[in-house]
Amino acid sequence: MDDALLARAITLSREKMRTVAGGPFGAVVARDGQVIAEGWNMVASENDPTAHAEIVALRRAARKLGTFDLSGCTLYASTEPCPMCYGAAHWARIERIVYANDRQAAAEAGFDDALLHEQMALPAHARAIEMVHTPHEDALAVIAEWRTKPDKVSY
Amino acid sequence: MDDALLARAITLSREKMRTVAGGPFGAVVARDGQVIAEGWNMVASENDPTAHAEIVALRRAARKLGTFDLSGCTLYASTEPCPMCYGAAHWARIERIVYANDRQAAAEAGFDDALLHEQMALPAHARAIEMVHTPHEDALAVIAEWRTKPDKVSY
Repeated sequence: MDDALLARAITLSREKMRTVAGGPFGAVVARDGQVIAEGWNMVASENDPTAHAEIVALRRAARKLGTFDLSGCTLYASTEPCPMCYGAAHWARIERIVYANDRQAAAEAGFDDALLHEQMALPAHARAIEMVHTPHEDALAVIAEWRTKPDKVSY
Repeated sequence: MDDALLARAITLSREKMRTVAGGPFGAVVARDGQVIAEGWNMVASENDPTAHAEIVALRRAARKLGTFDLSGCTLYASTEPCPMCYGAAHWARIERIVYANDRQAAAEAGFDDALLHEQMALPAHARAIEMVHTPHEDALAVIAEWRTKPDKVSY
């Protein structure tokens, strides 16, 4: 089951790289062996820096199921998800990720996934993007209001 | 300049939490002090697990500018971006991130950003989501094809 679904993600990575001019990445979200949604890299074609294959597949799966909660689903990816995509899988409550190429293979193709992985292990102030922490009373007050909000939807 | 734009992100976090029933988070993408796009949490309202305030603002800014490359832009966020959102900022080539609440404040409100940050520092096999690495010749071949693709758009 896993093999066929991972093979589908790899097929998408090849086909869409050739036809949509996106990066060489494909992804599938499935549950109980059934495909719920497919995705491929659309960063350049859609001018969307977040449109990695995994993000596209997760968004489509959530829309199709009518919920942001993809518990019980597996994400198949032709290449190990970058930190953005791993984070998206976390928030979507994905339980398993099956992937073929690892981050080193992605780095060899010129994608700085490995660099980004390293960045994530650093404290905020040591990262490549300048991080300016400016505490603000109003911002804390909003968080406090959320804590006691009776009708909130936890996600 | 930074203060006013961060204040705007905080205002969005409060207003949209109250009116759109999203999480208490707001974000602004600006360049040279001019707002390019605003975002707020739409996870529950759009059934999109990736629709954090920062992701929404980055996607809108990229669409507005017609490019995935937001070099020279600053991201203002009412709360420190989670790993998904930091990754998105990285891919969008954001240069500075200004934020008010840190990850501990988010954790106190019940958001497991801190947990996710910890996860990112672990090797893939040690993470909360089960990671299944299944190397595949075809997947490596796609990466190799990309490396020599003459018309690729690097991002």
